[in-house]
Amino acid sequence: MHRGNIVRDLRALIRPIIESRETPAGRVFDWVIQSMILVSVVSYTIETMPERSEAFYAVLRSIEISLVAIFTCEYFVRLWVEKRPWKFIFSFYGLVDLISILPFYLTMGGDLRALRAIRMLKILRYSRAMNRFRLAFIEIRAELAVFGLASLLVIYLAAVGIYIFENPAQPEIFRSVFDGIWWAVATLTTVGYGDVYPITTGGKTFTFLVLAVGLGVVAVPSALLASSLSRVRDKD
Amino acid sequence: MHRGNIVRDLRALIRPIIESRETPAGRVFDWVIQSMILVSVVSYTIETMPERSEAFYAVLRSIEISLVAIFTCEYFVRLWVEKRPWKFIFSFYGLVDLISILPFYLTMGGDLRALRAIRMLKILRYSRAMNRFRLAFIEIRAELAVFGLASLLVIYLAAVGIYIFENPAQPEIFRSVFDGIWWAVATLTTVGYGDVYPITTGGKTFTFLVLAVGLGVVAVPSALLASSLSRVRDKD
Amino acid sequence: MHRGNIVRDLRALIRPIIESRETPAGRVFDWVIQSMILVSVVSYTIETMPERSEAFYAVLRSIEISLVAIFTCEYFVRLWVEKRPWKFIFSFYGLVDLISILPFYLTMGGDLRALRAIRMLKILRYSRAMNRFRLAFIEIRAELAVFGLASLLVIYLAAVGIYIFENPAQPEIFRSVFDGIWWAVATLTTVGYGDVYPITTGGKTFTFLVLAVGLGVVAVPSALLASSLSRVRDKD
Amino acid sequence: MHRGNIVRDLRALIRPIIESRETPAGRVFDWVIQSMILVSVVSYTIETMPERSEAFYAVLRSIEISLVAIFTCEYFVRLWVEKRPWKFIFSFYGLVDLISILPFYLTMGGDLRALRAIRMLKILRYSRAMNRFRLAFIEIRAELAVFGLASLLVIYLAAVGIYIFENPAQPEIFRSVFDGIWWAVATLTTVGYGDVYPITTGGKTFTFLVLAVGLGVVAVPSALLASSLSRVRDKD
Repeated sequence: MHRGNIVRDLRALIRPIIESRETPAGRVFDWVIQSMILVSVVSYTIETMPERSEAFYAVLRSIEISLVAIFTCEYFVRLWVEKRPWKFIFSFYGLVDLISILPFYLTMGGDLRALRAIRMLKILRYSRAMNRFRLAFIEIRAELAVFGLASLLVIYLAAVGIYIFENPAQPEIFRSVFDGIWWAVATLTTVGYGDVYPITTGGKTFTFLVLAVGLGVVAVPSALLASSLSRVRDKD
Repeated sequence: MHRGNIVRDLRALIRPIIESRETPAGRVFDWVIQSMILVSVVSYTIETMPERSEAFYAVLRSIEISLVAIFTCEYFVRLWVEKRPWKFIFSFYGLVDLISILPFYLTMGGDLRALRAIRMLKILRYSRAMNRFRLAFIEIRAELAVFGLASLLVIYLAAVGIYIFENPAQPEIFRSVFDGIWWAVATLTTVGYGDVYPITTGGKTFTFLVLAVGLGVVAVPSALLASSLSRVRDKD
Repeated sequence: MHRGNIVRDLRALIRPIIESRETPAGRVFDWVIQSMILVSVVSYTIETMPERSEAFYAVLRSIEISLVAIFTCEYFVRLWVEKRPWKFIFSFYGLVDLISILPFYLTMGGDLRALRAIRMLKILRYSRAMNRFRLAFIEIRAELAVFGLASLLVIYLAAVGIYIFENPAQPEIFRSVFDGIWWAVATLTTVGYGDVYPITTGGKTFTFLVLAVGLGVVAVPSALLASSLSRVRDKD
Repeated sequence: MHRGNIVRDLRALIRPIIESRETPAGRVFDWVIQSMILVSVVSYTIETMPERSEAFYAVLRSIEISLVAIFTCEYFVRLWVEKRPWKFIFSFYGLVDLISILPFYLTMGGDLRALRAIRMLKILRYSRAMNRFRLAFIEIRAELAVFGLASLLVIYLAAVGIYIFENPAQPEIFRSVFDGIWWAVATLTTVGYGDVYPITTGGKTFTFLVLAVGLGVVAVPSALLASSLSRVRDKD
């Protein structure tokens, strides 16, 4: 019972450090974890570069092992101080924390390198932007569904139309309606890579009509999100 | 007369299922038809892929025959329960329903495959977005006409200008003012595929001036539609 | 004196037909001239196509001669009914009307074909959009000057930067700061043709920074014009 | 003491010319310096062109020497009339003025040509736009930080995703996550040069999802700047 008290006291001591950003110690802890996430992200990004030397790879490997150790400690400490550990395990951030370390143990650091990018999501915990996006999203959920569906409809009809016009002229480029969808996405978002584009007069005229009608439709969901985000700022 | 009563009772029973979304049976009917439309759309999209096997084609063919049978039943049931059948036949949705099945019977499922994409429009009946677009469009009809014409004017003048500058330097690319129009559409919507672009100093300077003036003009109609759509949300 | 009276009466009779859109005769006259302008524009556009036959060219040639005859009559009738003929000659629309016909007489329909595109501007006389653009432009004149200059500054600094980064790596593409300006215009308007783009890490990082800062700046003038145009609608 | 008086009087005479735009002499001085800056910018731009003759280079060289002389005089006069010279030297405009002339003396006009582009920044002193950008920036500083970070997060996650999808199919194009970042910047700003784009079905589907979510996020910072700039106009 005496020992239990010590543990209980320790937990009461550590909890505010980990869960709150109000105390100096809490801010230091947050900064440390955020720096680790950044190191992890930069290290992963560099590791994907093809022309790295063997020595450099060894350095990256040690960084990775240290980071996994730190993130594992962080995970168990969070689990320990949490009042309802099971709720934490299945919460969004609990799962992100778990997936950040699990692939390393499963493969002994082998082939699941890419999953390390998920660690980036750990930073969301510290991001005030996240809450705004959540509020903005809830506010315009119904709108987004309606206009998102309208955008999908416009994209699909544009895809079928361009396929009908261009498939006979460019059977290797517009092989199926799927290629049409790719063209419609690149065109209506105005990205326009230039890998697929109409060459027939019919296809070009159709593109003109699609842009005249479609730009206004496809632009609505992202305009809604942008304006909702700036409205949310007053409530934040 | 007794038999006529049964028919009348049956019609009174079926009508709310088909025409209303308030009753559970009506909602089920709507979900079934919507699923069929989706199956039809996906099936058509897959059918356009070039590398399908003969067996796979047979499956798609059976799906198509079943769907045409279902949509034909749906069409006649709608016609039968409708109080003014002729009005339904020549209404927008009546025509869409008819064109969704007619090509199959005319060609015994032959060469008019592409017309099956029109079935996508059947989904509009269930889309709340449709009504908003209609209201938004009515609200800004006069505006759209004025600024749509202004956009056409800017596009045409840009097309003539770039043709004059670039035709001597790239006679194979800017063959006529029509190529200029295609360039103007791709440029002023900022899609910029990169299949046609100016190479002379005069043409590049002209492009700069056209973008400086034209972006503001061509952006107006789609900005009007987007802002009108978000205004309409309050009235919906 | 008696004859002078007839002329005066005739002028009084014709003037409202030509200058007003309120009377039925005035509306008919306007529609005729607008149709002629459209025929002229379409005829010019078709004439630029390279693969026209000799017979087709003869038809276009007759149309052109007829149109010049009609526009010449229109010009002299306008001059005649006008109370202050000299003011009309040097007014914007008077000059447009003159340039629409003059090249034909100077070269007997020869090499100044391209100037026929100017006839398109005759349609502005009938366009309600024109007045709105004029009002919108006056309203934001000072703003446009300030932010237009800011955009030019951003474009120039981006051009110098990309030239410094990319010239050593791509001396044939980024030959001088002028090529950098062309790149900056295509990039900051998000057209992105893909004829010039950075390939060095420095140039790509610089592009990222330029886009982060520049998109907000370059978008301002056209956003100002678009929002001013929709404000003006209430006053029109 | 008498001589000191003359100097003091001269300074009192020259100061309003240099520091104020209210007096006619002040306006003339400003116009002269602005013209010199413009000449310098145009001269630098032309100098980067590869096909210049030796004679032409000599002319540009003389212009450069004259301009450095004038800007040096301007710098020392500003230093002399300034009440707190040290504050001027380390102010933004003081440093810009110094960097505009220093490279010439350090290298006797040699290899630091590119630094001459910095002279463009001298024009900011005369730009009313500058103040607005400063005010707009202060107003939305916190917003910009939050949404700028969110944009960076979206760009990085998009980069990792496209690298995972496209690296096996295009190892020469998507060599590392850095190429993915370049692709994400070009795509989410809708520039779309077309030098890098996905070719696998997975990569294209991922692009569609990234655009659906990301356009709304990445557009926010520049939309914030644009709307803040038009708000600031009322306070200016």
